[in-house]
Amino acid sequence: MKPILKGRAVVGQSGGCTAVINQSLAGVIEGVRGRREITALWGAAYGVNGILGDDYINLKSQSASVLKALGHTPSSALGSSRHKLPAGGEEEVLARLRRHDVRYLFMIGGNDTADTVLRIARAAEKENYELRVVHIPKTIDNDLKETDHTPGYGSVARFAAVTTQEAGLDTRAMKDVDPVKMIELMGRNSGWIVAASALLKKTQEDPPHLLLLPEIPFEEGRFLDRVEAVVRKTGHCVVVLSETIRDAQGNRIGALREGITQDPFGHVYVEGAARYLCRRVEERLKVRARFDKPGTIQRMSMPYVSTVDQREAFLAGVHAVRWALKGVTRVMVGFRRAPGKLYRIDYVPVPLEKIPNRERYLPENFLTSDSLMTTEAFKRYALPLLGPNLPSFPSLKR
Amino acid sequence: MKPILKGRAVVGQSGGCTAVINQSLAGVIEGVRGRREITALWGAAYGVNGILGDDYINLKSQSASVLKALGHTPSSALGSSRHKLPAGGEEEVLARLRRHDVRYLFMIGGNDTADTVLRIARAAEKENYELRVVHIPKTIDNDLKETDHTPGYGSVARFAAVTTQEAGLDTRAMKDVDPVKMIELMGRNSGWIVAASALLKKTQEDPPHLLLLPEIPFEEGRFLDRVEAVVRKTGHCVVVLSETIRDAQGNRIGALREGITQDPFGHVYVEGAARYLCRRVEERLKVRARFDKPGTIQRMSMPYVSTVDQREAFLAGVHAVRWALKGVTRVMVGFRRAPGKLYRIDYVPVPLEKIPNRERYLPENFLTSDSLMTTEAFKRYALPLLGPNLPSFPSLKR
Repeated sequence: MKPILKGRAVVGQSGGCTAVINQSLAGVIEGVRGRREITALWGAAYGVNGILGDDYINLKSQSASVLKALGHTPSSALGSSRHKLPAGGEEEVLARLRRHDVRYLFMIGGNDTADTVLRIARAAEKENYELRVVHIPKTIDNDLKETDHTPGYGSVARFAAVTTQEAGLDTRAMKDVDPVKMIELMGRNSGWIVAASALLKKTQEDPPHLLLLPEIPFEEGRFLDRVEAVVRKTGHCVVVLSETIRDAQGNRIGALREGITQDPFGHVYVEGAARYLCRRVEERLKVRARFDKPGTIQRMSMPYVSTVDQREAFLAGVHAVRWALKGVTRVMVGFRRAPGKLYRIDYVPVPLEKIPNRERYLPENFLTSDSLMTTEAFKRYALPLLGPNLPSFPSLKR
Repeated sequence: MKPILKGRAVVGQSGGCTAVINQSLAGVIEGVRGRREITALWGAAYGVNGILGDDYINLKSQSASVLKALGHTPSSALGSSRHKLPAGGEEEVLARLRRHDVRYLFMIGGNDTADTVLRIARAAEKENYELRVVHIPKTIDNDLKETDHTPGYGSVARFAAVTTQEAGLDTRAMKDVDPVKMIELMGRNSGWIVAASALLKKTQEDPPHLLLLPEIPFEEGRFLDRVEAVVRKTGHCVVVLSETIRDAQGNRIGALREGITQDPFGHVYVEGAARYLCRRVEERLKVRARFDKPGTIQRMSMPYVSTVDQREAFLAGVHAVRWALKGVTRVMVGFRRAPGKLYRIDYVPVPLEKIPNRERYLPENFLTSDSLMTTEAFKRYALPLLGPNLPSFPSLKR
């Protein structure tokens, strides 16, 4: 146990927003409550920009009603940013923090944020300034290493799983009109979100019928063959794809096409993966294909939020403060799944060095041999993250 | 009171699906329960196609658990269709119904369905075959005449209103990265759904910042000026638009562009309204613009469903059966709002002749003078349709 360290605390949010990032903020506020070592809790506006610009929100002076609503408000209440610190920028950040006697820094973010936080922690060590730094993970992409999963993923996974069943019912009922549907989801370079769309699939006839993942090079001929086979068999086909699928050469699908990259005014022309695939399906199968692209709605939707995700995001914030007060620093709050059949998460400090510039992809055993569908092993991993009360939509008996 | 008419009943669903169309089906099943005049209740598979192909689902033999889940299952449980009867097709339909001694026909659908149903009713009258025909309205577009609103609209309106606040929070928090967002919604030729996106807007800074409606010819210069002004003032801008906006000449925005309508292989190229507008904003403002296009998710989402919409859709089905048993025929179940401050709907029979080939657009007093935002009058009209427990997302105090 290190000696008591007295000073101010700063908390920030960074990177893409989620439906539960404010739960982690609420967890930090809860952790700080009543702890005299922390003389003030300031929220940095728009991530590290708030520190650089001395732009803070006093989190101890917020009304009880706002604090109560905070955890149920999606997006980032402090404002977020993707600002990458220039070389040496961490020293500027540290100077600002020192000027305000800040001794605790909590950043809620992903991969890039972890890098920023690590640089700040190292700068403080170099200057022998005691600053306790804890990174609180956050990303819908679920692509951080050294943790079972990341807060934010469970909720977007629930959105993907449930809306795919719902929108799939639309396609099944309208198969005479619009038999092919694409649902384009997020996920950066990994297919965790797209994979989650299959979590409530029970039979072969249930949607989704095939998945297109960024990890798997897209082969157009094979894709069209498969869509055609599914339509022949079940009368309709629901494809869930990542917006970042690529071909074997690494080119984004629907991003650029030879001969049509510019309009007559020289404007670059981006079609998007789902629309491109719809067009190719229509040309080949001579049936209509439509696409849904929920975009930021998938990561902001509160009615689809996972209560498990909410609770874990909150506890990650609580643990960050608890550890820092005990002297722990330069760590990320890692999630470790307890062994056994019952789902339970333990929170463990992970050295921050292990996080930046690494990404976690879907492991092989989570995908079927043709890479077009997920396995039971994936379901065992991901289903508990969605929370309870999952819907089920029975069909009329014929 | 007409004499008792004994025979079978057929119910069908037609046109685009909604989150509550199965509530109307459940209402018909409930209405028929215990009524001996109706000897059987058959659901026609895929609308009128089921009648033409003798493809029925026996609705009296369904299990209690399936019937209980039915109303909470989106899409059309019987299957839907957009099949337009060819000239004389109504006689073929009638012949099929007569063969099975069908005396009651309930069709749940929109504009086009009303036309089909009317033709069948007229054919029966011509042949002096007593067939009681009631049309149960259904369309997310809310564009039917002679009714205060249509079942299905309240739920998609709730989806539009809430997700615009949610996704708007994302844009506000990420304004340094993605300051402009488009949300592309449905609505055919009317802007009822897009208008609903503004129902939870409280201040000028709240999203949406402008609306693009199919009723109002799109002017690109004026649009770009307005987006630029909003971004200058609030740092970000959320635009909600209909996928069917048109210019003054009636051309769909983003559908075809001169010089780039075909790729080198001769494929027609459709960009879509939101993507087109994003591109134009990026060229003009030199900032990133993104779009969300929830597509069929907006009409299938159960977590965003309006409980008011659910109840009304159910009661529309119940009334249809009740009226038909009393001898009422060739009507649609119309919704009439009771006068006074308290929201209440009375169900009234509307002559079916008044429905087909007419569309209802947003009236002038529901739009501000620049046609870019809705008025308080629209809020008074539409807010009760969303149901209770609307979320509110307070901001941290600075």
